[in-house]
Amino acid sequence: MHKNYLLTPGPTPLPPEVLSSLAEPIIHHRTPQFQAILKEVGEGLKYVFQTKNDVFIFASSGTGAMEAAVVNLLSPGDTALTVEGGKFGERWSEICQAYGINTEIIKVEWGKAVKASEIERYLKNNPKIKAVFTTLCETSTGVTNDIEAIGKVVKNTSAVLVVDAISGLGAIPLFTDAWSVDVCVSGSQKGLMLPPGLAFISVSEKAWQKIKEAKSPKYYFDLNKAKKAWEKTDTPFTPAISLIIALRESLKMMQKDGLENIFMRHKQMAEATRQAMRALGLELFAPEAASDVVTAVKVPPGIDGEKLVKIMRDTYNVTIAGGQSELKGKIFRIAHMGYIEEFDIMVCIACLEKVLAKLGYKFNLGSGLKAAEEVFLKED
Amino acid sequence: MHKNYLLTPGPTPLPPEVLSSLAEPIIHHRTPQFQAILKEVGEGLKYVFQTKNDVFIFASSGTGAMEAAVVNLLSPGDTALTVEGGKFGERWSEICQAYGINTEIIKVEWGKAVKASEIERYLKNNPKIKAVFTTLCETSTGVTNDIEAIGKVVKNTSAVLVVDAISGLGAIPLFTDAWSVDVCVSGSQKGLMLPPGLAFISVSEKAWQKIKEAKSPKYYFDLNKAKKAWEKTDTPFTPAISLIIALRESLKMMQKDGLENIFMRHKQMAEATRQAMRALGLELFAPEAASDVVTAVKVPPGIDGEKLVKIMRDTYNVTIAGGQSELKGKIFRIAHMGYIEEFDIMVCIACLEKVLAKLGYKFNLGSGLKAAEEVFLKED
Repeated sequence: MHKNYLLTPGPTPLPPEVLSSLAEPIIHHRTPQFQAILKEVGEGLKYVFQTKNDVFIFASSGTGAMEAAVVNLLSPGDTALTVEGGKFGERWSEICQAYGINTEIIKVEWGKAVKASEIERYLKNNPKIKAVFTTLCETSTGVTNDIEAIGKVVKNTSAVLVVDAISGLGAIPLFTDAWSVDVCVSGSQKGLMLPPGLAFISVSEKAWQKIKEAKSPKYYFDLNKAKKAWEKTDTPFTPAISLIIALRESLKMMQKDGLENIFMRHKQMAEATRQAMRALGLELFAPEAASDVVTAVKVPPGIDGEKLVKIMRDTYNVTIAGGQSELKGKIFRIAHMGYIEEFDIMVCIACLEKVLAKLGYKFNLGSGLKAAEEVFLKED
Repeated sequence: MHKNYLLTPGPTPLPPEVLSSLAEPIIHHRTPQFQAILKEVGEGLKYVFQTKNDVFIFASSGTGAMEAAVVNLLSPGDTALTVEGGKFGERWSEICQAYGINTEIIKVEWGKAVKASEIERYLKNNPKIKAVFTTLCETSTGVTNDIEAIGKVVKNTSAVLVVDAISGLGAIPLFTDAWSVDVCVSGSQKGLMLPPGLAFISVSEKAWQKIKEAKSPKYYFDLNKAKKAWEKTDTPFTPAISLIIALRESLKMMQKDGLENIFMRHKQMAEATRQAMRALGLELFAPEAASDVVTAVKVPPGIDGEKLVKIMRDTYNVTIAGGQSELKGKIFRIAHMGYIEEFDIMVCIACLEKVLAKLGYKFNLGSGLKAAEEVFLKED
């Protein structure tokens, strides 16, 4: 028997409603039938993004929408500020540099959040900065940045605030309009409980002003084209039809559940995971700014981190993530995002305990499970 | 009762094997399990492309891979030659111009194929041309270009030949290596019988030489990144996992069927469709270069073309395509590509006859069906 549990920070598991919608016969995209779906998901996305502005959909991974943000907002030679606190923050710098943008970089120690005051200082020192590129949840380190505080700092300047909310949107609080986020970017395979292949981007009025002036070359990710098509409930190029139909299902579920409940569930799962790790004597990688979407845990001395993840996955069919880039083998990451609930977390902790015990790590068997249980019981 | 028939040139209908694979639980992409799938589809794509070179996969619509061809091969200020014989040929020019490429354009009358000798003349007159951008099947007009002849012309120059085979790959003959196609671009929602959302691109050694020198800005569609990842059976960004798993199914079916049979089936369906149209007294839009993947038919005088397509779709659930851009309302297009077979064509002709009769068009009822039947009977 072979039962799989997926607790990776993207892709996240898919609800049965989403899976069965993926198996429906395909329809043509330039039909009233599909237009009705586009209209519905457009409204649903506004709810999840908490914005009154349009949210555009690309057939691409989340990185495509990140590139869209850079090339639509800026021209070669413009100055941008990026925050690098992990692999995904670095991606902002890489994209900016690929397009000839002068990139000022705030390097944040991996495992720490950026301080809004630091961004404020940079913006004061360099009024040329046209856009600030940040990350809601830095998946590589398990850190959540304080976007609300950053929004307060950026909104009083001429710069726009761009947030990579690929991990985190629809899982933890992000109020695009209320927090003055000008461009919010996300992807399908995280909080939205879909397969990868769709990217989303919301655009504020302040951002549209920048877009009008921006001269970076672009075609597939051109937001002007997307906007023009969207006005006719269309997309400039063939959309990923089946994924958009599945999106309708997941948005329906999320709207029925309500963002407040969704945020609460993620918070509870994260807290249970953190308490379980502490009870097992494990150290969190980002204790001060731990994200509620993914928990990064230091691999204890004497244990082979890559082997731990591999045995959990290949022997027991419980898939968590290892560390990326400089954190390879040094941390493991448990996602509690999207279509994951408390009993998935219990399964994950049970499997982790089992493999840690087999690898010779010393701890009280069951202590992690009990700690998690206490959180779930108390907060129910 | 409501039974749908889809005969549009993308998306095309999906086989049940593909649909059910889409409904399987998602797996993580950085696992041996998914790597085995990537490896398998890599080989399958080489077969369908008829190439020994690697075929890279993007999460995007086909246009994304078109953009990849332009930005990876050329630098701003370089000169390219494009062939515009319809909407998709024009797209090559648009992309080139968006990236500051000097674009020489061969304008071909819509409904006609480009002459290889014309391309030869341009290449002789302007040795600066670094790349020739063409279209296998111009979906907007139903024309197939003679890529084999064009390949013979381009291969003796320093220019590379790029073919948009989004419509046509895996449906009609295209021998990437044997025909000296340097870069072949395709998409998932046509001959490959998948939902839209995947794009493919093959790259010859001659093309890699150009790619090394090319300085256009790029990130998401950077082929150097794709190559580096592919060497480790990986993709630079999260792949469209579920679509790639479905791709494995469709490639399996295509390999089992064999390209020769697939090409024969498309040829037969196309011929049956053309004969049916003639029997109905209708005129083909591209009689001299009619494509075997989609047949474009002139709307007869006195009939409202948009209404015809709309009634077939909204009243009888048979979806064909109308005309695009300047051909709107003037033609209709019947696809015979991918998971469409002879009896789908019979259904389509039956529905077309019915609606034409209702709209007052004069013809012998059943004559189209009979003409198609004769082709299918003879060529079986």
